[in-house]
Parts: sequence; structure tokens; C-alpha cells
Amino acid sequence: MTAKNAFYAQSGGVTAVINASACGVIQTTRQHKDKIANVYAGRNGIIGALTEDLIDTNQESDADIAALRHTPSGAFGSCRFKLKSLENNKAEYERLIEVFKTHNIGYFFYNGGGDSADTCLKVSQLSEKMGFPIQAIHVPKTVDNDLPITDNCPGFGSVAKYIAVATQEASFDVASMAKTSTKVFVLEVMGRHAGWIAAAGGMASTEDNELPIVILFPEIDFDQDKFLATVKEKVETFGYVSIVVSEGVKWPDGRFLAEQGTRDSFGHAQLGGAAPVVANMVKDALGYKFHWAVADYLQRAGRHLASKSDVEQAYAMGQAAVELALAGKNAVMPTIVRTSDAPYAWEVGSANLADVANVEKMMPREFITEDGFGITSLCRDYLQPLITGEDYPPYKNGLPDYVVLKKMAVAKQLSDFVK
Amino acid sequence: MTAKNAFYAQSGGVTAVINASACGVIQTTRQHKDKIANVYAGRNGIIGALTEDLIDTNQESDADIAALRHTPSGAFGSCRFKLKSLENNKAEYERLIEVFKTHNIGYFFYNGGGDSADTCLKVSQLSEKMGFPIQAIHVPKTVDNDLPITDNCPGFGSVAKYIAVATQEASFDVASMAKTSTKVFVLEVMGRHAGWIAAAGGMASTEDNELPIVILFPEIDFDQDKFLATVKEKVETFGYVSIVVSEGVKWPDGRFLAEQGTRDSFGHAQLGGAAPVVANMVKDALGYKFHWAVADYLQRAGRHLASKSDVEQAYAMGQAAVELALAGKNAVMPTIVRTSDAPYAWEVGSANLADVANVEKMMPREFITEDGFGITSLCRDYLQPLITGEDYPPYKNGLPDYVVLKKMAVAKQLSDFVK
Repeated sequence: MTAKNAFYAQSGGVTAVINASACGVIQTTRQHKDKIANVYAGRNGIIGALTEDLIDTNQESDADIAALRHTPSGAFGSCRFKLKSLENNKAEYERLIEVFKTHNIGYFFYNGGGDSADTCLKVSQLSEKMGFPIQAIHVPKTVDNDLPITDNCPGFGSVAKYIAVATQEASFDVASMAKTSTKVFVLEVMGRHAGWIAAAGGMASTEDNELPIVILFPEIDFDQDKFLATVKEKVETFGYVSIVVSEGVKWPDGRFLAEQGTRDSFGHAQLGGAAPVVANMVKDALGYKFHWAVADYLQRAGRHLASKSDVEQAYAMGQAAVELALAGKNAVMPTIVRTSDAPYAWEVGSANLADVANVEKMMPREFITEDGFGITSLCRDYLQPLITGEDYPPYKNGLPDYVVLKKMAVAKQLSDFVK
Repeated sequence: MTAKNAFYAQSGGVTAVINASACGVIQTTRQHKDKIANVYAGRNGIIGALTEDLIDTNQESDADIAALRHTPSGAFGSCRFKLKSLENNKAEYERLIEVFKTHNIGYFFYNGGGDSADTCLKVSQLSEKMGFPIQAIHVPKTVDNDLPITDNCPGFGSVAKYIAVATQEASFDVASMAKTSTKVFVLEVMGRHAGWIAAAGGMASTEDNELPIVILFPEIDFDQDKFLATVKEKVETFGYVSIVVSEGVKWPDGRFLAEQGTRDSFGHAQLGGAAPVVANMVKDALGYKFHWAVADYLQRAGRHLASKSDVEQAYAMGQAAVELALAGKNAVMPTIVRTSDAPYAWEVGSANLADVANVEKMMPREFITEDGFGITSLCRDYLQPLITGEDYPPYKNGLPDYVVLKKMAVAKQLSDFVK
């Protein structure tokens, strides 16, 4: 087997640990230089392949590659760019294969969510048809935890830990203030379709210390009367309440709560945020003073508070992707297989991309309490190991010492791609 | 000297380290049982004194008191309740003294900001007039960093570190996405009058790694044209920009940016948030895709990311308050005196409350760059030691192991207070 090169790209929204997967891919290939000569990374994801804008990772020092493990975001740049169907856009796929052929790329490692699993599968299929077979391996990544088959998804555990800790800390804060001031705290979290991240807010309440938390899941139609009654009951019992609202919560008619038809002074539709909508609703109905926060990128970029198991699994998925490639596998994705909840144990498995692509894993209904506002013990058992353990980055002058790579370009050999 | 009791209360918005000051007060008094028999803490701040609702801290174990050092929020409860002027509300002050006399309280430790320094001073003055002199010592606390005389204020360093890290992490994230998606990230931070917290966002950009950050300070009138031109220039140079906006930013006519006259679908004024206003303004003018976050309580409750110097200073202020009391001082506040920027060195000083009460320390103009959107090297020199060093809490099952005290009440001896 002559040494070929590998292509690696990051896709979609980045996470606190996607670079740990990149670290796993690159460190593992460096142990097999005889089989994989170099990893070319797509600058800004798959767009880097289409435009033949490849980053030569052999130019990066071992120390910098190692530092990817503790650096959040997408070190090579990511993109929101979904390749169209093969029928509608064969030219793009053919261009990919052409670029890969030109640079002697035999391995395609695509680090992303459901959409990119689909792209990965198509690259594998088309490359074969075009007589330049490429082994395409998908590396799972998504904060939304919505990929099927794998027990959980790298990126999710760290967001879950961030939201659990943030909900706990803010609840302590509002509890201190509730006597004369704020009684309601609302935290808006990511997860447009699946409520996994919102569920993590429920982990802030523990057996040792029960906290009054109301969760609004995208899986549960919003019932305003029931919600307000629950908020009132919590405030009357505990003196305060913390509400964790998913950005994806909807009214029964399908409208997002965040799209309340608000207008600014110029008459433009205000792109809201579910948190202020919920907070104002509580204030109008019950008169409680509120505070609200929108965690947005802070939650998925918060590497300073990453979950240890998440970092380990993200790395392991990158490593396993290379090992699967070296074992001759194609159109597969390494997965996390849970073998025990407590003590937590897991191992690496693999899934066929045909079974992964475009399938979304929602929260099981039995993970949500009957009233729709909390998590069950089944859900707690699932989430607990994913948020357990800390993995602090090194610090320099009070800030995490995150790495910025050199990102030297590989010389282009093709003419520009014109769609 | 017969042993008297001390009264301790937390006032106003809580912080990540106000309990570290409580820890300093209580641990230090426990070393001087011969002089201070017990610390009675006000349940929910000064309201606890008015209603004779005192917490017996002698019932708390040494381990739990030690754990206050790493627990955010106000462990005894705080309140937003400003005593009126002595002339307008003598009854309240007299009630305080009556409660203190009844419980043999000779020391009043009040942990708060400018307003509570004023209350503290009045208690000292009135108690003397009423023939039951109480030594009143103020313990400085405010995330806003706006107390005079002291070089900085416990609570601020940890918020500053939180905002610096959040700005850095979110900037890494948006940099990854900017090619095809988000180009502008807006983070709203606290500080209605003073821009100290907003300034901390500027620390995310370092000599090693310059990040494009635009800061909107409450001290600088908002100039929309200049702001949009700066945002455009940063995006054209770096590909993206991070904007840190203080909740207190105002138009030249004095209106808050956050009060844009937005209305929800019911016609209610929407209590905005400056971040969405700024984000939508950029989108409307320049067309850039944006994300925005509002850190709110997360920033001041974020003990998981506390600054080491902040924790040490918060503890030292509590300890020094007791030492000042034992040295016979009255109507004073311990202060932080900086003796060197680099290497950072500081010592404990003290100030007369008459010089502290109701004075607000703003950002010096020379800490803000000439264009009004950044921080100068003078400001960096000031902020650097305040965010340096980490002080992680212990963790249990993936969450910080914060303490919840027993908070046993001292038996009441007086009839209810009726205003």
C-alpha cells in the first residue's frame, strides 16, 4: 500500500471539542506515515475542497496539533454549506473527486452532523463510480446530540455540562435575590429540534440540593396556562424559579415562541430570543421580577468548562476514524457504545453511513416528566456520565491558552471551480 | 473586653466571591471567640436585622464555612433595600439599633456597594447617639468595580475574567463560521453606569493573538455611523467581529440603547436587551449574519471560572474587616492598595466611610481608546492582574460542589417591626 493523503474537514456549527477530534485524526495519522502521508484540511470546511484551498497540516508542529485537544471552535474553519443532491449538483461532487485525485487523497474524514454524514456517503459512492475510490469516514460531531446509533455525540457533553453548571450557578444567584428582587430567571439554550441541551439544565438540581427548575422542550407543545401555573407553584414553594427554555419551543400551531411578532421602532421584525418572550410573559401574568440570559455561542464555545468524557470521546472518534480507514472500512462512522451507566463504561463501535445520514434522534418521551417540564431519572442516568469530569485547558495571563494554527496552503494545481 | 456578637449581612446584587468575604469574616471571628462570641447573619440582608430574622452562624460547621470560599451567590440571602435618609426614616435605624442591642451585637459588618457603605456609616453614627455604640465596618463588594479609593472591588475580577474568556471563546467560534455564516457576534454585559465589565471583553485580544473586538461603553455616547463604519472595517479586515456591549450604553439624548421602543404582539413595551438591538442594527445596515448572547447572571454567578486574585482579595477584605473591628476602628472599609502592576503586588489598606459612601468611580477616559471602541494599554495594565489565576471549586458528579448552609434562626426576643 503506497501512502496516500487524507482530507479532513469540519462541518456546520462548531463545538468545544471538534478540534479534539481533529487532534485525534492528525495524531493518529502521524503514527502511520507509511500509509497516510499527510492530512490536508479543508479551509472553511468542504468549501476548501471545492475551491482547492487545502491546509497542509504537516506544517503544524506536534505541540500545536496537541493543543487542538484543548482548543474550542473549528481550527481550520467550518462552513454551513450543504451539497445538493447528486442529481441536482453532480458538478460539485465531481469537482470534489477531481481535487482529491489531484492531491492523491485516498481518505475523506468529514467531521460533522447528519447532513455531512449524507455528503460523506455520497462522496464514497461517487468516487467509486468515477474510478477513484475514496474511503469516506464520518466523524460524529454535534452539540444537539441528535445523531442516531451512537449513544451520544461529541460536543454535546460539554454543552450539557456548561448548561447544567450555568443553571446551578444562576439558581444560587436568584435564590439570594428573591426576597426583595428577582424571582424568575430564564436561560435560553440551543437545540432547535431536540431538547437534549435543555434537558441538561435539569441536572443542576440534585438529590443533595433540589432546585426549582422548569424546562421548556421543543418536543412538547407550549401550554401557556399550565406553564404559568407551574411557575407560580415553584415561586410559592421555593421563593424563586429558574426556567430553561430551548430556542426551539413552539406553540401548538407550530410557530416558534421566539417569533412573537415583535417589531422595533423602525417596524422591522425583531429576531427575538425565546428568553425575553418567556420572561415578559411571566411578568405580565404573575408580576414577578425577572432576569434572563441567552447563552448562544458561549455554551458551545465554553471549552474552559468542558466535560472530561466529552473530550476523551471526541478524541477517540477522530482516532477511530483513522483506524477504520486503515482497516479498509468505507462509508462508516465510529460510534460511542455505552456498556454501563454506573460505573460509566463505553467502547468504540461503528455504524454504516446509510443508517446515519439524515436521521434525527429526538429525546425519548420517557426522558421527560409527565407534566412536560422536567427530566426523569432515566434521563438523569443517561446524562450523568456525559457531564462528569473536568478537563481544564492551560491558562496564560488569565486566559485559556488556545492555539491558532499556521494554516499554510497547499499549492493549487487546478483552475478555479466555476459552478 | 467582654465578648459581644457581630452582625453580618450581604447587600445588593450578589457576586461569585461575596461568600468568600463571608468566609473571611466568620473564620477570623472564630479565631477570636474571646472577643466576638458569634456572628449573626441577616437573613436576606439588612431586612433580616429589621425583622429580627438572624441566622446563627455558630450552628454551621467549620467545613461548611470553609466551603463558602468557593460558593457563589449570597449564602445568607441578600436584598435590594436601601434605607432612606435618617431624617425620613429614623424609625428603621432605631429598630436596627434595638435589634443589635437586644442580641448584644457590638460589630456591624456590611458587605455591599456604595449604598450600603452609606447605611453602614449611618448605623455607626446613630448607634453612638443612641448610647449603644456599634463598630460598623463596610466590606467592599460589587461586580461594577465602582467603589472609590480601593484599587478594585471584590467581585469584579471574576466577572472580568468570565467576560474576557467568554469573548475569547465566542470570537474563536465566530471566526470558524464567518466564511459562510455568522460574521458578527454581540455579547451584552452588565454595568449600567460604569464600563469596567465591558472593558474586560477587550482583554480577550492579546499580543499573541489579536482579535477584532468593538466595545460599547456606557461612558461614551453611542455614535451609530461611527460604530457601523468600525464594524464594517473589522469584518473586512478580519472576516468577523465581536462586539461587547454594556447594558448601559446610551444615545446622545440619554435614552438607553436597550429601550428601542420595541413592542410585542400585544403592544407591550418589550424590555429589550442591548445585544439584540445592536445585532439587528448591524444586520439592517450591513447585512451581516449575527448571533448574540446576554450573559446576565451567568457572568456574576460564574464561580467555576473565578479569578484567583479576586477570591483571595474577597477573603482578605472579610478578614481585614474583623481585624479592623478588633483594633477598635469604626466607620471604615478595608481597601485593596496596589503597590505594583507587574509583578502584581497589593496590600490591605482602609478608608473612612465618609469618603466612600455614594461616590461612584467611572472608567478614566484614558483607559478607553481615542475612537471610543477599545481599551488602552493603561487599562490592560490595570485589568491584567485582576483576571490572572484560576481558583476552581471542587466538583461532585460533574457539578461544582457548592454549599447550602443550614441557616438556623436565632430565637426572636422582640415584637414584630411595624413601620
